[in-house]
Amino acid sequence: MSKSESPVPHLTTSLSGPLMHLEEQFINHQAKIESWFREQWRITQAPFYSSVDIRNAGYKIAPVDTNLFPAGFNNLNPEFESLCIQAIQQAVERIDKPVDRIILIPENHTRNKFYLTNVAVLASLISKAGFEIKLGSLMNDLTEPVSIPLDQGEEVTLYPVMRNDNQIYVSDGFYPDLILLNNDLSAGRPDILENLTQTITPPLSLGWSNRMKSDHFKNYQEVANEFSSIFDLDPWLITPLYRSCGEIDFMKREGNSCLESNVNALLSAVQQKYQEYNIEQRPYVVVKAESGTYGMSVMTAHSAEELLELNRKERTRMSTTKEGQKVTRVLIQEGVFTNETWGPDKTVAEPVVYSIDKNVVGGFYRVHSKKGVNENLNSPGMRFEPLAFDDCCISPDIDQSPDSHVNRFYIYGVIARLATLAAAREIVEGSVES
Amino acid sequence: MSKSESPVPHLTTSLSGPLMHLEEQFINHQAKIESWFREQWRITQAPFYSSVDIRNAGYKIAPVDTNLFPAGFNNLNPEFESLCIQAIQQAVERIDKPVDRIILIPENHTRNKFYLTNVAVLASLISKAGFEIKLGSLMNDLTEPVSIPLDQGEEVTLYPVMRNDNQIYVSDGFYPDLILLNNDLSAGRPDILENLTQTITPPLSLGWSNRMKSDHFKNYQEVANEFSSIFDLDPWLITPLYRSCGEIDFMKREGNSCLESNVNALLSAVQQKYQEYNIEQRPYVVVKAESGTYGMSVMTAHSAEELLELNRKERTRMSTTKEGQKVTRVLIQEGVFTNETWGPDKTVAEPVVYSIDKNVVGGFYRVHSKKGVNENLNSPGMRFEPLAFDDCCISPDIDQSPDSHVNRFYIYGVIARLATLAAAREIVEGSVES
Repeated sequence: MSKSESPVPHLTTSLSGPLMHLEEQFINHQAKIESWFREQWRITQAPFYSSVDIRNAGYKIAPVDTNLFPAGFNNLNPEFESLCIQAIQQAVERIDKPVDRIILIPENHTRNKFYLTNVAVLASLISKAGFEIKLGSLMNDLTEPVSIPLDQGEEVTLYPVMRNDNQIYVSDGFYPDLILLNNDLSAGRPDILENLTQTITPPLSLGWSNRMKSDHFKNYQEVANEFSSIFDLDPWLITPLYRSCGEIDFMKREGNSCLESNVNALLSAVQQKYQEYNIEQRPYVVVKAESGTYGMSVMTAHSAEELLELNRKERTRMSTTKEGQKVTRVLIQEGVFTNETWGPDKTVAEPVVYSIDKNVVGGFYRVHSKKGVNENLNSPGMRFEPLAFDDCCISPDIDQSPDSHVNRFYIYGVIARLATLAAAREIVEGSVES
Repeated sequence: MSKSESPVPHLTTSLSGPLMHLEEQFINHQAKIESWFREQWRITQAPFYSSVDIRNAGYKIAPVDTNLFPAGFNNLNPEFESLCIQAIQQAVERIDKPVDRIILIPENHTRNKFYLTNVAVLASLISKAGFEIKLGSLMNDLTEPVSIPLDQGEEVTLYPVMRNDNQIYVSDGFYPDLILLNNDLSAGRPDILENLTQTITPPLSLGWSNRMKSDHFKNYQEVANEFSSIFDLDPWLITPLYRSCGEIDFMKREGNSCLESNVNALLSAVQQKYQEYNIEQRPYVVVKAESGTYGMSVMTAHSAEELLELNRKERTRMSTTKEGQKVTRVLIQEGVFTNETWGPDKTVAEPVVYSIDKNVVGGFYRVHSKKGVNENLNSPGMRFEPLAFDDCCISPDIDQSPDSHVNRFYIYGVIARLATLAAAREIVEGSVES
């Protein structure tokens, strides 16, 4: 999608007062904010890449999901290709040894052309950044290279990953210096990747077989608190409140009392904040599998009752996530309204921001015409329209209004970097534990 | 200048055979080239920024001047602003201590609006990269801040630089963590900048009061030799031959025998290369002050006689450079033909490529309608048209012809990085000596 075709969603909220104030604070304190980030990145190394789902309620802007194995690079504005290339060079430079050859390990879905197009774009960016790259697949039944046609005459070739001693390789003698995971390891840590002498990034400990969303949001809450102290901001304006429950079994209706008490406590905490800011919307929560992804095992509820009265089909849907993993722990997250809409039909739009290393490189809007302002747009079977940002989110323009597009994108970039920093701290914690 | 208005000059040479081969080699060996550069940058830190004047003869592409205090940032394609911002963040990150505040020290010409617009653009990029920045002037007669209006209602404010103990500052209490020189110190190393505890970049030793062009081209020759060995390239295809003479006095006609013998030797070496490649153009040399800049004290000659028969006016012009420094040493450089022309009038065009840290961030064509293919386009009183590149030069496209625009720009980026690497080695040598 070219720049000129890419309109920016409209913020449809009568409650823009506090946001304008919030945005103004961000713009006015840019130098302080950037200084703070520089300090943070000196302390904690950024993940290789990430994408952050953001919800903008007008009065509040917060991340709701941080993906360390981001898909969707094909949805970014091609005008920022050079920015991505430069950021990839920087990200690889941070690896502790020289890197010339890279194997990118994608997810195992060979039929999802949207996903494979993302893989092709990512591989092309890495190649343009001056590295040799091949795609190494973990699919069990793959015994020789397979080429899968994409749209517009392109194709991707997946090579089976093989192991020799403590190194993996593909093809004849293509041993990588770096293994880049674009596979979130929902099915568990693959044996073939254990104890390698080659560097793997992100580390295996950050796959969904180990990672829990509440670890991320605990870190995010701390990051947001520290950040907010720079200019006396209420951290709630950038943080989704959350609670978590273990030992859940949706099918056997186990763990209901934990769900009930935590949903009620969370709704009441949010209601209190809404009163403080004179927000008249009705609070809701989003219940998500602690280790889920792809928008599976996610539901919203306005009360504990709604959650406890799920019918069999709904309970079945909540009880397993990607790759058939059983859901036993859930995150209960404050629902953040999306008050950005796009086009004449006022379609709900949710920004997704991409980073490579510590650099924001752009993003897009996820637009879904069948969803309301309090629904999860990353839902099963979702058909979203990607609307590439026509700005790369890396700097504000103090000469423009706080709510101008360039400044709104800058704020999305700041929020995304806060979530990325939280993920960076998770990686450090993970490497201590693993 | 917007992308759509920026055409790419046409390569008007019947001798494109060897170039196509040269270009093909660059494109085919991209991964090797980039791997080599990564290794080089691990060994030697890149200068903060640079611009490199390149001449493209069709059969040969070579740098002819490398500026470590680059002006002309206002001539770059604004679409690559984000690339510049990201590169500035990376360049500052390499400084050995945390940097929040920067003083940029410009040249002392307050009446050159082209130059001051460059300063304004550079300061704006640094500010957008998240740093506090002020312009500190070394002008002796400046006692309080002065604002100079630019076009389109903009202005720049120059602050007198003051010193307190071993630190400089401007205004009330604005002490910088980093001093960025955009002043080439032609008039000498200013006392006020000596022995500071603050970091200065580029280092004072690289100002034109110390630096000699032949030091740069000696380093360039070594760099080009090493680079050429990667894929068995004749280094001459990317290197201007050179010789140098000291103890010259154009007014007193001293040093003529040195000039004569070196010009003759150089012309004969070039002639030999032309024969080897069946090039039918007539070799020429460019004589430049060893420490000159701004295109002053530069002349071309096709024979030693031409140089020895200068009239009084020509000798006067050659004998002093910027800031009235007397020329006593000259570089005699192989003249590289410019065989790129632009527009229906076949105006001669010369590419200038900009880097920040080790990242190429774009460039422009210097176009001059009054000059021939063997003349210096950066000449006194020159009125060039900047034609911003519509590509940032950082990656080739193997699916396109070796001489496609994107690939030609990639090659310019490679040549510029070779020159930047030579400058990086000069900085290391300079810091050992100083």
